[in-house]
Amino acid sequence: MENSCISLITDFGLKDEYVGVMKGVIALKNPCVKVIDITHYIDPQNILQAAYTLLFSYSYFPKHTVHVIVVDPGVGSDRKIVAVKADDYFFLAPDNGVLSFILNEFLCTTIVVNRSEFFLPGVSNSFHGRDIFAPVSAHIAKYQQIEDLGDEISPKELIKLHNTGPYIDKGQIIGQFVMSDRFGNLISNISFNDLKKFKAADSFDIMNTINIKFKDKKIVGIVNHYEQVKKKSMLAIIGSKGLLEISINCGNAKHDLNVEIGSKIYIS
Amino acid sequence: MENSCISLITDFGLKDEYVGVMKGVIALKNPCVKVIDITHYIDPQNILQAAYTLLFSYSYFPKHTVHVIVVDPGVGSDRKIVAVKADDYFFLAPDNGVLSFILNEFLCTTIVVNRSEFFLPGVSNSFHGRDIFAPVSAHIAKYQQIEDLGDEISPKELIKLHNTGPYIDKGQIIGQFVMSDRFGNLISNISFNDLKKFKAADSFDIMNTINIKFKDKKIVGIVNHYEQVKKKSMLAIIGSKGLLEISINCGNAKHDLNVEIGSKIYIS
Amino acid sequence: MENSCISLITDFGLKDEYVGVMKGVIALKNPCVKVIDITHYIDPQNILQAAYTLLFSYSYFPKHTVHVIVVDPGVGSDRKIVAVKADDYFFLAPDNGVLSFILNEFLCTTIVVNRSEFFLPGVSNSFHGRDIFAPVSAHIAKYQQIEDLGDEISPKELIKLHNTGPYIDKGQIIGQFVMSDRFGNLISNISFNDLKKFKAADSFDIMNTINIKFKDKKIVGIVNHYEQVKKKSMLAIIGSKGLLEISINCGNAKHDLNVEIGSKIYIS
Repeated sequence: MENSCISLITDFGLKDEYVGVMKGVIALKNPCVKVIDITHYIDPQNILQAAYTLLFSYSYFPKHTVHVIVVDPGVGSDRKIVAVKADDYFFLAPDNGVLSFILNEFLCTTIVVNRSEFFLPGVSNSFHGRDIFAPVSAHIAKYQQIEDLGDEISPKELIKLHNTGPYIDKGQIIGQFVMSDRFGNLISNISFNDLKKFKAADSFDIMNTINIKFKDKKIVGIVNHYEQVKKKSMLAIIGSKGLLEISINCGNAKHDLNVEIGSKIYIS
Repeated sequence: MENSCISLITDFGLKDEYVGVMKGVIALKNPCVKVIDITHYIDPQNILQAAYTLLFSYSYFPKHTVHVIVVDPGVGSDRKIVAVKADDYFFLAPDNGVLSFILNEFLCTTIVVNRSEFFLPGVSNSFHGRDIFAPVSAHIAKYQQIEDLGDEISPKELIKLHNTGPYIDKGQIIGQFVMSDRFGNLISNISFNDLKKFKAADSFDIMNTINIKFKDKKIVGIVNHYEQVKKKSMLAIIGSKGLLEISINCGNAKHDLNVEIGSKIYIS
Repeated sequence: MENSCISLITDFGLKDEYVGVMKGVIALKNPCVKVIDITHYIDPQNILQAAYTLLFSYSYFPKHTVHVIVVDPGVGSDRKIVAVKADDYFFLAPDNGVLSFILNEFLCTTIVVNRSEFFLPGVSNSFHGRDIFAPVSAHIAKYQQIEDLGDEISPKELIKLHNTGPYIDKGQIIGQFVMSDRFGNLISNISFNDLKKFKAADSFDIMNTINIKFKDKKIVGIVNHYEQVKKKSMLAIIGSKGLLEISINCGNAKHDLNVEIGSKIYIS
């Protein structure tokens, strides 16, 4: 198909030739497809981080984009590779939980990718990105379907990450910091909707009265933009992912506040 | 338009999904445009560095390229976003001085981008790259004009960086190092034309007799290529930007000479 | 030509604007060509690393791809630039040994690139990537031939790296570690074919009985995939390049075993 897209999320980094070689294979199999890098800097083999990155990204792409995720500690073992159609997008990934948020949210068609005629000949044991994911994604982008790639499987049989969402305990929302970005913004897994449901309050009220605690820090209220506080001051904001974030205006919250990813954040 | 180009200069880095998401939105709005990364490693919120990077890059692109600069400490505040047409190129950037060199040099058409029908719905307060810059740049590339994006404003009303060029004092040119690159080359803001005007001399004479001082270092004369001096020796050269640079052949001048960006360089 | 490809291998990194500017020039000269980055993180001026990266990558791209390598310590000196046609691909590089593996392996047509009408006007002494490699590669991709770029030269007259392959001494294969990747996998220059020839044995026998030594470490046998050993355990595997690699399952062999690139590995 003309104007089709493939997106890539991997932990390959950009120092080695791995990503370039995948793109070479895609160009070989499907010269017309556009390939867009989401990131290649997932921490090595960090499936949870890849799952969140996909969640925050996929819906901004053209419908029918093929989202390819190669964060794959089990490469070469008998772990499955799966192709999924959901929410008008395609997904191609190892069956290791990286598609959890998609599988939990949507009605999915799910295929185990096992027809080797779509792979490169002589599949290696350590670089399925090149030998399987690249040619198969090129094929999906070209024909806009996944049914010919292998046998259907129930989404229930696929591996999912344990629930990592926030929960309510003793009148508090307890969430965690799940990512940080280059600016040191600390991104929690608590959405603005979670806050509204919890407080049964309107947006104005939440923005002004909510109590946020993490480590030995405390913030009251949520700002609309960074410059509402002084330079180098701490703030809470609903970030571009719709999630509660902790930042320092013109500073680096992760570094300056010394917060670990995975540590807890409390709302009351 | 077919074969249209968008270039990107940001401080987003490539670890997070931000750049990939911008490209997803661009592909969504304008499937035909080619997107070229200039760099995503501007130091966080370093407007001067972004302004120089744009200056050194933009004219090597096809005419009518849309150059997008998202280095934007004021995101979410009431800072303006501006679209500029100058020198047969388009520019889209926050109104924070990053376009200074373009605005100072050329006759410009300048528009305040304020028609939200060209934005993504539900603009966030912290990621205008995705919500405004991406869809608006896709629109400019498609229709090759900026007039429909908002109201015209005089270029005089836009923010400009204070003059950072070299000056003459007591018979010397006093400039500064404004950037370094991966090889440790130290790039000054003194051009070969500045040298010729200052000495009122021909090129041959300048190359052989000019005195260069910085920190406690002194160099006489300018070489034509790195291998004119011994390995690990210091040299001055007119670099690929047309500016005076200090290098070490097969070494790293910034590191080995311990020179700070912003420190001065004297020509006599 | 439609659907033509250019690949790029450089040591420019992605922090500076150099790669983006090269792509701008390519788009200017040939709006239709697809440009694919293999890597821009070759260690500065490391010709051997670039030669291996090319060897491991080039054949995965569509036939007639123009592979451009700009790792060029002699830029601005009288070193030649060469265009090569071999194995149905084009190669454009400085004459410094970076094409050794191609020149040694294939029947080549070899041209010294010296017709300046294909360069940008006013070629600089320090950025031939922009001024020569970019416009010339765009031209090759468009016209799919190299003969008009300059005079033919015998491949014998080009610079080649000294033989860096493994050798046999006292009944052992002696090789070396030539690269490592982001995951810390240590890649040797010993291929599975080298092992089969050496032992005059079948694959099964080699996999189970081969003795591998490096530093003070010893491994017996080769595994098929990482998960065959326990987490954090050391293993030998035939990697995706067809070469013997040393890895740690879910670990970083280069870091954890403290192995230098260039150090030796012995097979008996």
